[in-house]
Amino acid sequence: MTFSSKLIEKAVEAFATLPGIGRKTALRLVLHLLKQEKSNTEQFANALMAMREGIRECIQCHNLSDDEVCQICTDPRRDKSLVCVVENIRDLMAIEDTGQFRGLYHVLGGIISPIEGIGPSDLNIDSLAIRAQKGDIREAIMAISPTIEGETTIFYLSKKLQPLGVQISTIARGVSFGGDLEYADELTLGRSIVTRTPYAGR
Amino acid sequence: MTFSSKLIEKAVEAFATLPGIGRKTALRLVLHLLKQEKSNTEQFANALMAMREGIRECIQCHNLSDDEVCQICTDPRRDKSLVCVVENIRDLMAIEDTGQFRGLYHVLGGIISPIEGIGPSDLNIDSLAIRAQKGDIREAIMAISPTIEGETTIFYLSKKLQPLGVQISTIARGVSFGGDLEYADELTLGRSIVTRTPYAGR
Repeated sequence: MTFSSKLIEKAVEAFATLPGIGRKTALRLVLHLLKQEKSNTEQFANALMAMREGIRECIQCHNLSDDEVCQICTDPRRDKSLVCVVENIRDLMAIEDTGQFRGLYHVLGGIISPIEGIGPSDLNIDSLAIRAQKGDIREAIMAISPTIEGETTIFYLSKKLQPLGVQISTIARGVSFGGDLEYADELTLGRSIVTRTPYAGR
Repeated sequence: MTFSSKLIEKAVEAFATLPGIGRKTALRLVLHLLKQEKSNTEQFANALMAMREGIRECIQCHNLSDDEVCQICTDPRRDKSLVCVVENIRDLMAIEDTGQFRGLYHVLGGIISPIEGIGPSDLNIDSLAIRAQKGDIREAIMAISPTIEGETTIFYLSKKLQPLGVQISTIARGVSFGGDLEYADELTLGRSIVTRTPYAGR
């Protein structure tokens, strides 16, 4: 791509560093900003700077937060004895979006993976144990992917938390709502028969 | 989408104002920036601000430019008597990318469209006529889409420029290189037979 303007070239290159944005898309975004008022670009740039400058990690649950303790941890309407353990912020957001969970979270920042050299000490596990030691946690729900690494992490956490009086549960696995049986993978379908639930009627 | 951080929410909303970027993609971009160094976000924001503040329109050809006259117009190696007339900056860039054109450009900023209420006075036509009056232009190549509006614009420009001694040409239309005849549209295929060129051998 040939640019007759260094300013445009730099702006296009900046956008093109973002994941999933190639140079053609980047150019489209830059030309879009040029069509808008100058103040729009200023607001855009300022929102990014303010976010990058101001954001921090909640000292309790490691969620991204505007303050020392995040909005979820400080919400008086939430059940503080129920903690959902997630791998990362995206998973936390996905669960929040369901509107079905009214407890608190704990973001591990990854899962135990010997292959990638990620051990328990690389994750936010000690801070979870401290929360449990304080006696704040009645139940910890493991909302962690059911991979080998995920299962290892769940096992490690259960060994650490159960002696502290924390009840461990995992999110339910099974065929999706609206999912066609024939397209469900064998493992999920097989497990969904073994872990079948009694029919409750309507 | 539920955010426990106002800062992230604002940054996501800022990205989501861009064309083709929904809130899920916007979140992915924001989380990407958070994983990078602070200085990366600063550089990104600064590149956009510098671009939006500094960019202007070339006073000769209406291309986007860092200076009063653009890099193409001031390039001493380019043929100043040959001017390619384009609808917009994207078309100019597409032609530049071919590396086949070594003349100058003139960006109209649109085409004549009575339906959309765009007349000749809304476009950069007077400035093109002034360039022609100065005797600078030997040939003007109309690189304009062959729609009804495009043909109208070409006709209007030819009436305006021919009396000033400018030779008018249009870019060649025909079946794409590598294009399958059976997939070419009827109009293009029909015209490509009428405007066939003598075989030059190899």
